[in-house]
Order: sequence, then structure tokens, then C-alpha cells
Amino acid sequence: MKLQTDKYILPKGFKSIGFIGKIKKENPDMAVLFSEKPSVFAGVFTKNRVTAACVDRNKELLKKGNTINSILVNSGNANACTGEKGDMDNSNLADRLASLLKIDSNSVLTASTGVIGVNLPMDNMLEAITTNAPLLDSSSEGFQSAGRAILTTDTSEKFVSVTIKIKDKDVIISGIAKGSGMIHPNMATMLGFILTDVNIDQQLLQKTLDYSVKKTFNMISVDGDTSTNDMVLVMANGEADNAPIIEDDKDLKLFSNALFNLSKYLAKAIARDGEGATKLIEVEVNGCKEEDGAKKIAKSVIGSSLVKTAIFGGDPNWGRIIAAMGYSGADFNPEKVSIYFQGAPGYVCVMQNGAPHHFDEGSAAAILKQKDVYITINIEDGNSSATAWGCDLSYDYVKINADYHT
Amino acid sequence: MKLQTDKYILPKGFKSIGFIGKIKKENPDMAVLFSEKPSVFAGVFTKNRVTAACVDRNKELLKKGNTINSILVNSGNANACTGEKGDMDNSNLADRLASLLKIDSNSVLTASTGVIGVNLPMDNMLEAITTNAPLLDSSSEGFQSAGRAILTTDTSEKFVSVTIKIKDKDVIISGIAKGSGMIHPNMATMLGFILTDVNIDQQLLQKTLDYSVKKTFNMISVDGDTSTNDMVLVMANGEADNAPIIEDDKDLKLFSNALFNLSKYLAKAIARDGEGATKLIEVEVNGCKEEDGAKKIAKSVIGSSLVKTAIFGGDPNWGRIIAAMGYSGADFNPEKVSIYFQGAPGYVCVMQNGAPHHFDEGSAAAILKQKDVYITINIEDGNSSATAWGCDLSYDYVKINADYHT
Repeated sequence: MKLQTDKYILPKGFKSIGFIGKIKKENPDMAVLFSEKPSVFAGVFTKNRVTAACVDRNKELLKKGNTINSILVNSGNANACTGEKGDMDNSNLADRLASLLKIDSNSVLTASTGVIGVNLPMDNMLEAITTNAPLLDSSSEGFQSAGRAILTTDTSEKFVSVTIKIKDKDVIISGIAKGSGMIHPNMATMLGFILTDVNIDQQLLQKTLDYSVKKTFNMISVDGDTSTNDMVLVMANGEADNAPIIEDDKDLKLFSNALFNLSKYLAKAIARDGEGATKLIEVEVNGCKEEDGAKKIAKSVIGSSLVKTAIFGGDPNWGRIIAAMGYSGADFNPEKVSIYFQGAPGYVCVMQNGAPHHFDEGSAAAILKQKDVYITINIEDGNSSATAWGCDLSYDYVKINADYHT
Repeated sequence: MKLQTDKYILPKGFKSIGFIGKIKKENPDMAVLFSEKPSVFAGVFTKNRVTAACVDRNKELLKKGNTINSILVNSGNANACTGEKGDMDNSNLADRLASLLKIDSNSVLTASTGVIGVNLPMDNMLEAITTNAPLLDSSSEGFQSAGRAILTTDTSEKFVSVTIKIKDKDVIISGIAKGSGMIHPNMATMLGFILTDVNIDQQLLQKTLDYSVKKTFNMISVDGDTSTNDMVLVMANGEADNAPIIEDDKDLKLFSNALFNLSKYLAKAIARDGEGATKLIEVEVNGCKEEDGAKKIAKSVIGSSLVKTAIFGGDPNWGRIIAAMGYSGADFNPEKVSIYFQGAPGYVCVMQNGAPHHFDEGSAAAILKQKDVYITINIEDGNSSATAWGCDLSYDYVKINADYHT
């Protein structure tokens, strides 16, 4: 499957724009995604007990089974823990956009990210929406400006697109995301917006998204913190005009696989761009009795501050890996564990069947100098696997988060 | 209760010594604690699935219900993940000490801390035991040398003693501990050794220790990692000659309270001395429906890298606190949450009943400049409380752990 990442591609029938809402000092901080044709949508939201106004509202709309036309996003302010005023502000933004686009308020989803506990600068935002909604366009530039406006401490844009054939029709799926700090399994200050022109049943879309998120966005960790605002949304407007996907057939599998690969790309891009990160770390756990155990182990290793600092320091410290496996809560036999470090220059086995394994330090050093470091763990206890992604822990993580003032 | 921390005090009938076992390059790295009179003992061990040889052996001896005479400790090498050779080495060390002290091998417990997956330098260690076991002494200096020899990346010694009256007899309880990296609830590269001359039933001793550890050592977090070697041991030799504590009466309560306060002191000393720490953070959660929920919230906040970096940066970032509460897994109503920062200069309320609360920035800054920062969280949902301790996350944490090579 060819993922396209060099040029922002909008699926058929979509328009978008990013603009300055004067929430941040000067950078673009608002975006609108729009489809003239009503779209089914699916969403996955943070599991944090404390949720922002936008999360609550979107979940309600998802329950109602509406179709939607638009997603309104802002960065720079999470509008979380802002009480009733926060809920009203959130609705008022959707109302304003809806009236400008001549659609129903309930067909506008909202998403916010940024500082918690501060009210939105409503005057600035309403004015910016009024000015910019008429400028929505279907060009690459419009979509890219939206992709940029949703970022916070990200250092790179996160975009990916894929085209598949469903019943002889070209179907496009494109996603943008923002990540950086507070990224942890179960979705954390992470926003992902996926637009597609596929014609698909809403429940199948939700099922497909659930599956993808579980294996991708929920398997990344930057610092173990989970935010109040995370969400991944998919809008499908049917403009590809394929015969609708309405059952679990090969077309659904094709679409599901494409969505999975697209989600994996975005999730890895988020992990790679974790605050202060210098490396992407991939932890693959094989041979577990159950997938749940494999996941626990992978997440525990990728989340360990000691493992993360070791990789930052270029140290193949497998002792910290086995220790993190041990407190993961998963059941396994330590005497059947083998651990490998892999990278472009090859691989080294650092632990074999529970015992230290002699390895060439030069080879290990060369592997750990790579931008992508792969840790492979074999348990020899079954056939289940899991993969998690994260990043190293550097001085810059501390710097960014000690200096980011409320 | 007066805790004494200025001078190492051995309870009656104990001897001890710290010495150089040539495991580390040059610092003292071995210690022996000894009571001529057989002692009942209690122990709490790491919950890590991967455990060191010493943990396995001590647990076996605890199950058998032996009395013991001695604890043999080494730092610089964890003797974990070292296979059968590791188990044999561990027993051989106990055997050598037992034969020199003319006691049974099964009356020697062992404890190790340090690098994982490397075999012990047995020749050096056996020779050092042979040379030093005859030098065991009952002085402050001997005990202090033991307290020093168990340290690894600790920057300060951790000692505390307390004297209580049990049925007109003076009972002394003294503890030493080592901590620093990998410290997290459920005990992590943390060793605590408590010696007492109280006369007490073994099962009551164990029960008392379990209670204390749950509320103290298991409520601290440095970096969320749990090690393979953690343990807290108590030896009680009865030399105080008090009428034995054999039931749940006021004497047990007195002893239990003393053990709790002593454990709390050591646990806080460990948190304060976390790798790279510049501040001790105490999180107190009040008004929960259940203690379990209060504990989850306290641990989640104290373990959050974002909260830790914020405190390092002097920022009263309550948004990160409420977010960490939200993903703790505890059930609570965000709209009933109030959050306070406290320190020597007073306190500020930063969140009241779920909404941001205006506070004086100067006062907050003054509080966050203190060495000890207290975060108080009120939930107004019941009567249960919990307290957890940790430290901030600084550049030096990254430095220490990126540079500490396998």
C-alpha cells in the first residue's frame, strides 16, 4: 500500500482552511474541515475522567447518529475545566460556523487542544470564523494550512493520504494529526482527523476506526500522560460514489487495512515528534499467550523513563527492559525471554532465554545511533504479538515542560 | 513521636559493619547486619514478575518461618537475570557468612542492588566477607558504615531511629534505606532494613510491616519504574526484654505507629533524594469515597512526568494535575475538585469546585521555590484520604540515566 506524504490531498467533495484565531500570539490556530454533502462519522475519545467541552459535545452527537458537514478545530486553548461557560463557548463557536455555512449546528463537530482551565478568547475566534469560513477551498494549500493550524509544540506537520480501489472507484483517505507532549496509550493531547470520500455504513466505519485506533494511536507513548481533549474523528462523505460498504466483506477489509496503515503512519509520526525526542522507538513483542499480555509488555517498555533515557544515551540497557516487562502486569516466564536491538546496521541479541547474551558493543552502538530504534522481544509462550511506539527522553523534554507556563 | 536522625543508633544485641567488596570500583559496597540472638523477621518484596536471586531466597525463608541472625547486603550489582549461577552465587555468599558467624545458612538473608544481568565478582566478595565478618561491632560507626555501603546513586544517607516504651521497657527501632532511581509504588530498587529489639510475635510483625509499607514505601515514586530487587526487611531480636507483643493490643498499636512513622521518614527521604531531584513533592488527597481511589489519584499525580517537570520549572500547573487525576482510573466528580499548593510561605488555591481559581502569582512562586512542595486535593465525595511522595523531574534525571551505562 503506497502512503503518500509529500503533498496534502483532499478526498472528493471536501474543503478546508487554517487561519489565525488570535488564541496563540500570532500563529494560525484554527481550522475548518468541511464537506458540502452530509457525511457519516466515527470517533474515538479520551478515556480521561476529566473531559473538555468539545469531547462531551461530540460524544453526544455521535450517540444521536447525526451526519455531519464540518469539524471546527482550535489549538492554543483546550477549553477544558472551564465550567458551563466553556460548554456554551464551544456551542457558540459551532453555531457561528453553522450559520455561515448554512448547515445545522449539530452537523459541526468541535476539537480543542492547548492550555487547560482558561476561557477561550471568544471575540477573536468568532471574528476569525466569520472572516475565514467563506474562504474554505479544495486545494492542497487550504488543507495544509488546516494541518498546520492544529499543531501545538509539534515540530513537524503530520499528514498522510492513501488511495484504494473499492468496486472500481478510487477512494481517497487522508489524515492530519497533532501530537507532541502528553501522548500515551488511550490517546493523549492527540488530535487526528481523517477525511474520506468512501461510501460506507456508519457502524462499520466506527468498528473500523475502533480497530485501527486500538492498534495504532493507543499504542504510542510520549510521557505517560493522557489528556482531557484527545480524539480521532473520521468523516466519510460518500463522494467516491462506490457501491456502499454495508457488510463485513473484502471491500471493508481493504478499507480497514488502508485506515490501519494510515493511522499507524500518523501514530508513529506523533511518537517520533514527542517533546524533546531524538529517536523513534518501536517495541515489538512476539510469542505471547494472549494479545493483552503482549500489549501490556510493549506499553510498559515503551513507557519506562529508564528505558527512554537509556536509548537517549545510546545504551542497550536490557536490564531496564526486562525490569519494565516484569512490572507490566503481564504473565510470562522470564527464562524464556530473548531481547534484540535492531536498526539499519543489523541487529544484536542482548538477552537470550532469560540470560545475558554476549554482544558486540560496536554493533550495538551503531544501531543505537540510528533515528529509528527497534526493540524486539520474544517470549516463546504462544502466538500473540503487539507493537508499541514511543520516543527517547531527553534534556529537551524537561526543558520544554519546565518552561511551558500556565 | 521523636524521630532521631542525627546519630546511628543500634538496638540492643545488634552488630553491623559496612566494607569494600570490590564490586564497585572503590567505595564500600557490602554490609552485614547481625544479632547474636535469633530474631523473628518480616519482609515485603517487589511485585515485579522478574525477581533477583536474593528476593526468591528470602521469600522462601520467610515462608518456612525460620528465625534469622543476619542480613548480608551488597550494592553495585543486583544479581538479577543471572540464571542458575546467580542463585548459587547468592547461596554461596550466605553460606560463607554463616560459617564465619557459626550460624545456619538459612538464618542469613541476602539483598543486592545495582546493575542487572552481570554475575557477581564472587572471589572479591567472599574474600571481603572473610576479612570483615570478624570485625562486626555494636558502635554507631559500624552501623553508619553499613548504612553507607548499601547506597548506589543516592546523594545522602538515610537513617532514622525511634525509641518507645513497651510495658516499661525501652524498645529501639532503627532503619536504614537506599533509594534513588527506579522508585515507584510497589517498591523499586529500594532497600530498607529495620532492626528492633522488641519482643514480638512474627505474624504480628509481618502484619505491622505490611500496613506500614502500604502507606509509605509503596506510596513513593521517582520515575515509575519498579525494580527486580526491592525489599524491606525487619529483624526483631527481643533483647529489649519487654513482655512479648502477642495480640492486637495497645502495645502493638504503639509499635505499629512507631514503625509507620519510621517508614514514612525513610520513604520521604528516598523520594527527596530521587535521581536529579531538586524538590520533595507531597500529594495529599482528601474526601474520597474509598481509600483505593484516593491512592490511585495520589499516585497518578505524583507519577506524572508533566506535573514533575512543571514543579521543577516552578509552575503551579493545575491543569496537568487535574489531567493526571482524570486518567488515574479513580472515579470522582471533576466539578467537586479543589486543588491547593502549600509550602512554608502559606498556600494558594488554584482550582475550586472544578473551576480555575484566581491566585496570586507571587505567592505561588514563593511556595514553589521551597524544597518541599505540598499539593492538597479535596474531592468532597467521602472521608477517605491518601498521601504519596515523589520528586520533580530535572535535567539531571536525564543526565544520570542517559550516562549510567550497562
